[in-house]
Amino acid sequence: MSNPVVVEVLRGERVESRHSGAGAVFDAEGGIVLEFGDIDRPVFPRSAVKALQALPLMESGAAEALNFTSAELALCCASHAGEPEHVALAAQILRKVGAGVDDLACGAHWPSGVAASRALARTGGEPTQLHNNCSGKHSGFLCAACHNGWALKGYETPAHPLQREIHAALEAMVGERLDESRRGTDGCSIPTYAISLRGLARGFARFGSGQGLAPARAKAAQRLREAVAAEPFYVGGSERFDTRLMSRLGARAFTKTGAEGVFCAALPSLGLGLAVKADDGAGRASEVMIAALIRRFLKLDAAESGRLDAFTNPQLRNWRGLHVGALRPAGPLAAQSTTA
Amino acid sequence: MSNPVVVEVLRGERVESRHSGAGAVFDAEGGIVLEFGDIDRPVFPRSAVKALQALPLMESGAAEALNFTSAELALCCASHAGEPEHVALAAQILRKVGAGVDDLACGAHWPSGVAASRALARTGGEPTQLHNNCSGKHSGFLCAACHNGWALKGYETPAHPLQREIHAALEAMVGERLDESRRGTDGCSIPTYAISLRGLARGFARFGSGQGLAPARAKAAQRLREAVAAEPFYVGGSERFDTRLMSRLGARAFTKTGAEGVFCAALPSLGLGLAVKADDGAGRASEVMIAALIRRFLKLDAAESGRLDAFTNPQLRNWRGLHVGALRPAGPLAAQSTTA
Repeated sequence: MSNPVVVEVLRGERVESRHSGAGAVFDAEGGIVLEFGDIDRPVFPRSAVKALQALPLMESGAAEALNFTSAELALCCASHAGEPEHVALAAQILRKVGAGVDDLACGAHWPSGVAASRALARTGGEPTQLHNNCSGKHSGFLCAACHNGWALKGYETPAHPLQREIHAALEAMVGERLDESRRGTDGCSIPTYAISLRGLARGFARFGSGQGLAPARAKAAQRLREAVAAEPFYVGGSERFDTRLMSRLGARAFTKTGAEGVFCAALPSLGLGLAVKADDGAGRASEVMIAALIRRFLKLDAAESGRLDAFTNPQLRNWRGLHVGALRPAGPLAAQSTTA
Repeated sequence: MSNPVVVEVLRGERVESRHSGAGAVFDAEGGIVLEFGDIDRPVFPRSAVKALQALPLMESGAAEALNFTSAELALCCASHAGEPEHVALAAQILRKVGAGVDDLACGAHWPSGVAASRALARTGGEPTQLHNNCSGKHSGFLCAACHNGWALKGYETPAHPLQREIHAALEAMVGERLDESRRGTDGCSIPTYAISLRGLARGFARFGSGQGLAPARAKAAQRLREAVAAEPFYVGGSERFDTRLMSRLGARAFTKTGAEGVFCAALPSLGLGLAVKADDGAGRASEVMIAALIRRFLKLDAAESGRLDAFTNPQLRNWRGLHVGALRPAGPLAAQSTTA
């Protein structure tokens, strides 16, 4: 069975393109609240689980010992746009343990933020590993490794004690065994493990509520959520979806995008966890999917709900600014009442 | 019925994302050679029909009277990367009729070629309408309008005599009535008409072979094909799929990409026309789709066929150059013998 069409792209009144996908919403007790499509097929969550990958940094005491600020913790959970503030803060994290850009294993790429990329080119600059959207996460990894007395070299490989801790944390949070057959290599060279949307939604319900977690882990999750809610710019960037959405919703929603059309979210006040995947890997589709789910479950007043239109129904304009189309939720995500 | 999965994206050994789509291959007599998915649903071909939109430029005598070179004609059929050569040639076309950049209605955008875009930023420059990937087509439009004694202003609007001629040429080539319900506004502000893949494949079979066309139209199509085959750089750019593929295959394949996952092609020596659409609008999927079809139908020796691997099975590397995955044709496009 193929997954349902969940997002339509309109040109004028006609549907030009269609995205299919799957999604799950779980409560913190592990009860299923909503599902569509195949939620048991494992998908690579990619960057959507960066906050879970930061748990060892917290639970080891490294973050506290090294005086991580909220902005720094947000950057450890980030897919950042490579804006100057992100780059500078990643370098600051590295300095906590005397590490440098050459210790990073994420690779260099031009800033994912278009304006930041052009600004860098205008100065005649070239990107370093600090511009990689994962540089904050990797800097946090190096701090955790250093604090634990582990070798920095090879910190990104599956056999390194840090990656083993991250693997164990992921397994516990999502409640699935993640053996080698689930493993791929992520864009930033660390392991990524394929996980069902069921498991991811369950894991984010726990991450958002702390329910079912040991006290130290619940506290770590809470600190990360508070950091991101306080500093949403550092988890994304000026134009990025997560930053824009969380700047509007505050601590009511924790969201995180992943490459290839994955999105995870927690609605802490409701104890809900959300996970979606656009089959084709399109970010534009997963953004509309997660925004439509958030609007359905969060109790928003009419004005707040209206302000989410830009996320659930983004309008398309051409190079001269003419309105040519829009995206909209479809099928199981089509607009309806906001009741659960 | 949903369309079949036709392209898979692998991370390691696991399928990470899936693209569904439809496609049609027709011969010049209108006989169907191959089909998969829904080939009757109209889709916006976008830039995939630029060569058909250039027919009035040829048939009016404008191209001959204004001494269009092969490179200039290729640019009129192009979605170019905005490299300096493309920009300069578009300006040269405009000068033929004393028009300038302000007469263009395509809008400005940064060069679609990443290197060209960075190079422009490095010089402190800003893009003009000449950098728009459609600037060659629009410059050709202005030449056709001027040659016919029509107003330049409004040349992009549906009611302008030039757009009416283009509309009539499209209807005749694809054999479908394209009424207002089929019309949307393209990224470059001209009308785009939704056409079935059946019609597009039939139209490109005619465009590639001249069969079933009046002599003047057959000659116009031949001249455009020869121009693109002679100057493939100008129909795309250094890194663009059409340029790379046609540089390898010469006059044996005429291909043209369109936004939102459309691809059209003609195999003139076989009298075949091809049209595909990735449901979700992904260019990476439509590229693999059209390359897989071309490899199936063109008679290639083993070495030539092997050189198409980069198009049918592009390999994915991460920011450090590690091999992390690949794309591959799937379902009805899965690798098989090269017989039709």
